[in-house]
Amino acid sequence: MIYFDDIQVGQQAAFGPLIVSADEIVDFARKYDPQPFHLSDAGARDTFFGSLAASGWHTAAMTMKLIVTGRSEPWADLGSPGFDDLRWQQPVYPGDRLRVHTTVQDKQASASSAQQGTVRLYVETANQHAEVVMSMTLSALLERRLASV
Amino acid sequence: MIYFDDIQVGQQAAFGPLIVSADEIVDFARKYDPQPFHLSDAGARDTFFGSLAASGWHTAAMTMKLIVTGRSEPWADLGSPGFDDLRWQQPVYPGDRLRVHTTVQDKQASASSAQQGTVRLYVETANQHAEVVMSMTLSALLERRLASV
Repeated sequence: MIYFDDIQVGQQAAFGPLIVSADEIVDFARKYDPQPFHLSDAGARDTFFGSLAASGWHTAAMTMKLIVTGRSEPWADLGSPGFDDLRWQQPVYPGDRLRVHTTVQDKQASASSAQQGTVRLYVETANQHAEVVMSMTLSALLERRLASV
Repeated sequence: MIYFDDIQVGQQAAFGPLIVSADEIVDFARKYDPQPFHLSDAGARDTFFGSLAASGWHTAAMTMKLIVTGRSEPWADLGSPGFDDLRWQQPVYPGDRLRVHTTVQDKQASASSAQQGTVRLYVETANQHAEVVMSMTLSALLERRLASV
């Protein structure tokens, strides 16, 4: 288990690939973001996307999946207060191979609790052409090692 | 169809309710955010959450669902460049009844294209106790009415 105390500012990690399927794009969109360009090629044809493209929320969820399932050792994660500056920079299409790259930007022990601290992660999701499709700065609340003694 | 030109700054809208089910929480978490507190009561017991709680990405996706499916007239939506300052303020539990409230904060015609403009929406998602569970400022790219003439 990786605790707040184990994290180094500047530390990087890479995750993936995850291959995006058309079925999964449509399934997610039907459930959560049923806009025409996320449901079919026909619905996307005359839009910016040009053909079926993933909901940005789906790209965010796939990014989370890559991080959570790709860690060689799990983080003592207490949840996340949120994030800043999420940018959907390029569409995500069926067949895209997504990879995620994270960099620890900052860490801060809690002023109110000796048992936790916040880590800020810069997260970039890229496709097989090395184009960044999404970026954000995610905050994660982590347990401190001393709290587990 | 609602175009950029039809939107008024200050305009508000309300969506919901959507009742959150335990099955959907677990289904989403298995696919995208398989952390123990999003998978079972047992996995959440000794955490901040106390019992099974939805992934924050699931809360975001449910919020999107309420907005997209709840509009009486669809927006001429060209996609979203992203958003700022997403905050998960309270956990979302099975049985919660979510409602979403949106306020148009700002609108700006595109400098580079006469066919589109950006609208900034402040979005709050609240539970049945009127506690805000999530907030964010979402940007949406909308078609201009003149472009459709």
